[in-house]
Amino acid sequence: MKVSRRTVLTTATGAVAFGRAIRGQAPASPLAGDPSKKPGRPSRALGQRSPFEKPQRIPRGASGAWTPHQDLMGTITPADLHFERHHAGVPDIDPKTYSLLIHGMVERPTVLTLADLKRFPAVSRVCFLECSGNLDRTAGPETTPQRLAGQTSQSEWTGVPLATLFREVGVRPGATWFLAEGEDAALLTRSIPTAKAYDDALIAYGQNGEAIRPEQGYPARLLLPGWEGNTNVKWLRRLELSDRPFMTREETSKYTDPLADGTSRIFSFVMDARSLITYPTYPVTISRGWLEISGIAWSGSGKITRVDVSTDEGQTWTPARLQEPVLPKAHTRFRHLWNWRGDEAVILSRAVDETGYVQPTRAQLLALRGPASTTYHNNPIAGWRVRSDGTVVYREEAWG
Amino acid sequence: MKVSRRTVLTTATGAVAFGRAIRGQAPASPLAGDPSKKPGRPSRALGQRSPFEKPQRIPRGASGAWTPHQDLMGTITPADLHFERHHAGVPDIDPKTYSLLIHGMVERPTVLTLADLKRFPAVSRVCFLECSGNLDRTAGPETTPQRLAGQTSQSEWTGVPLATLFREVGVRPGATWFLAEGEDAALLTRSIPTAKAYDDALIAYGQNGEAIRPEQGYPARLLLPGWEGNTNVKWLRRLELSDRPFMTREETSKYTDPLADGTSRIFSFVMDARSLITYPTYPVTISRGWLEISGIAWSGSGKITRVDVSTDEGQTWTPARLQEPVLPKAHTRFRHLWNWRGDEAVILSRAVDETGYVQPTRAQLLALRGPASTTYHNNPIAGWRVRSDGTVVYREEAWG
Repeated sequence: MKVSRRTVLTTATGAVAFGRAIRGQAPASPLAGDPSKKPGRPSRALGQRSPFEKPQRIPRGASGAWTPHQDLMGTITPADLHFERHHAGVPDIDPKTYSLLIHGMVERPTVLTLADLKRFPAVSRVCFLECSGNLDRTAGPETTPQRLAGQTSQSEWTGVPLATLFREVGVRPGATWFLAEGEDAALLTRSIPTAKAYDDALIAYGQNGEAIRPEQGYPARLLLPGWEGNTNVKWLRRLELSDRPFMTREETSKYTDPLADGTSRIFSFVMDARSLITYPTYPVTISRGWLEISGIAWSGSGKITRVDVSTDEGQTWTPARLQEPVLPKAHTRFRHLWNWRGDEAVILSRAVDETGYVQPTRAQLLALRGPASTTYHNNPIAGWRVRSDGTVVYREEAWG
Repeated sequence: MKVSRRTVLTTATGAVAFGRAIRGQAPASPLAGDPSKKPGRPSRALGQRSPFEKPQRIPRGASGAWTPHQDLMGTITPADLHFERHHAGVPDIDPKTYSLLIHGMVERPTVLTLADLKRFPAVSRVCFLECSGNLDRTAGPETTPQRLAGQTSQSEWTGVPLATLFREVGVRPGATWFLAEGEDAALLTRSIPTAKAYDDALIAYGQNGEAIRPEQGYPARLLLPGWEGNTNVKWLRRLELSDRPFMTREETSKYTDPLADGTSRIFSFVMDARSLITYPTYPVTISRGWLEISGIAWSGSGKITRVDVSTDEGQTWTPARLQEPVLPKAHTRFRHLWNWRGDEAVILSRAVDETGYVQPTRAQLLALRGPASTTYHNNPIAGWRVRSDGTVVYREEAWG
């Protein structure tokens, strides 16, 4: 639209009187507190949350902290609410003295500083990161999504593809595995197939637009999209190429899954498809009428293709809406409109990924895994019980 | 891979000795400070930045604060670094007493509380938000991207489509415009065509996964993807439907653009395509060899289709890599590898969007707009001068 300036000025009318609503009820707002009647706060170097919003992680000493999924929406996890998990606390590392050694079966053993890493071509990608032990099996009715499964979070990560560094140092053809070692007091070490490096692994130094946070591996970590959290070694200081896995303590005594048939599964890297309702869940109370059941679904194998929602404890299922764009190996927000009429109900969600994998029930999972191994890679369908008074609690299930 | 548990245990070998690098130099790291030799910090309810990272906005009293683009990577702006702009400071609004009135040419004038808004089907989308006055025309050589153009930022926004609310209140067929009014002391009001509501407008209450921040309109704002920032009315308290624009003070005395031909352009809503190099820029010093020129490009008209980079002040141009997925009306990260040999150089970037629009030079912009109007909608190609000592400064350009 194009008008002369004169025309604009002569047709100006200014603000319109505040009308009175016919439908709905404006909450009490005493004039003394009317924000439009007094100047607001000046700006600050860093923005802050509203004093009315207090999302917090559940901190667990020197072992971790859980993401408050019930307070979140969309798909990005704010960096200060990203879950953390470690075996000996969070180290403080000086980026000026940080270095990453790449050696072993390589033509040119190399030490890279953080500045060196940042000179290589970078990529960014949004993906989830989930601890392989992300289920509280002791959960009672008063369990939030945070307590049940707060060890998955999502960021936009930025870093250099590990494949680029492997070309730079000249990885030898026979090198099929590499060791990744962290600089924390636990010296976390894991063996990773080099195939993953050539697929989509990154050395990440950026998280949600800024430098990676200390709890997530500052100044640089290994990022293996879709693979269990502990393999995404934080505070990464060393990569050693080899023709076999290193069989470190972490991958023998710890991250191994006994199966129902008496054997054990090791190197169970991929996090299987899962979904988690985040609303309505404990501790909210809902009222009758239309509301939106909402949650996140993700798969370490690729894209989520469907999330089914049930409001009758699994008798019938309806596909939820998936928020576009659906990205591979990423938390995908799902939403499902529901008219709650005041009856008791159990709501469930079930994720399906592009490989056709369907999120199992607890019973299916136990049949596969056996009662002895229930610590890692548990991704059962979770239920939330809506009582007739509108309160919502977690539907407990016995394990083993 | 599947092995029996016994096999796993007998092949375990534990950690491998730390090798010595042949190439590259490990920075000095006194053993006393070795993070692997002492337990790390326990976790906290909220994660914090590394003490070595201090990105900050430039606060400008009760008018705004600029995003530090030179410190950022990827595409998401952390919420506490999102730019803010307002005419009377930031109000603190109690979400329990917040309400939004929709009235005027509607069948059912309605007041909606925040809880009401959250019952409607929600959507999330990543998009940029840019102030129409996002250019420091007085910029001298020692200008950062933040100071030059720190009034654009990007978030994942969550909210209810305005189209849904318009159906709910029964907007009358003849209602072609609506007024949006904020609850801040400036009572910012803008007239918006209803067509935008039916296209992609949201009433947003979520930002980067959490509740929207006070500086960005807590508890709810109008979000008009791709349109100039001030139309995205924050602290939104009222929408009035009408058959004509309201010609408020903000859209006559302020957000109107005089043109070179003597007429003025009002309702210049769409932010045209633009790009901004964020590295290397003042105040960094680069060293010779390969490095990556990186920046963001965006367009209020849709997707960015190409960003050209020049390292010879516009004599030759090369398309940069665009980070996938490229989203419409969104900051798109571009990257271009450059082998700097130590010669003086001027680097430029030029955005092209899906409508074919090409980011103009300052001279092209001035020819269109005339010397009288250079405050709003200035999106010229910006240059950065690399001196032979590796220091980088902004390439000054005279205005008007």
